Amino acid sequence: METRLTGPEINTANIPNWKMNGDKIEQEFFFHTFAEAFSFITRIALEAEKIGHHPEFFQAYNRVKVVLTTHDAGGVTLKDVNLAAWIDKINWT
Amino acid sequence: METRLTGPEINTANIPNWKMNGDKIEQEFFFHTFAEAFSFITRIALEAEKIGHHPEFFQAYNRVKVVLTTHDAGGVTLKDVNLAAWIDKINWT
Repeated sequence: METRLTGPEINTANIPNWKMNGDKIEQEFFFHTFAEAFSFITRIALEAEKIGHHPEFFQAYNRVKVVLTTHDAGGVTLKDVNLAAWIDKINWT
Repeated sequence: METRLTGPEINTANIPNWKMNGDKIEQEFFFHTFAEAFSFITRIALEAEKIGHHPEFFQAYNRVKVVLTTHDAGGVTLKDVNLAAWIDKINWT
């Protein structure tokens, strides 16, 4: 099982755009259109299926919030940090 | 502009699975897998683009919440009721 990371460990993980919220990390993204925003979560959904680790999504028109946590571990793990870094890399806002 | 509907008008609109929440209507859907749940919101997203009226989505693994409102009208309109009915018709949970 993945090990839950501490706050300081997450803070040094080089994902500065992600904010801690309880036992999760999250980021909001703003796009020009609904279609662009939905395409972004679609790209993430495909990766999530591939790696077997799934974010929570919220989308309201051109605004997307992505929330990452590892339920089995009860908090944020390396899986979340790695997926967060991957999302930052593909972010096309 | 679309006319905002009153609570009684929405209650008689034959969309009993949708719950009023403030100036919105919403429904939760439960699927077997993340992929099924994401496919469901994808189908709705395509319709939303076609008709030019977009729900808010929330997805956490196999659970989806769809929220409908018409921002220009400050509440629920016939656009939302019609999209709600369409979503009930295609619902494959």
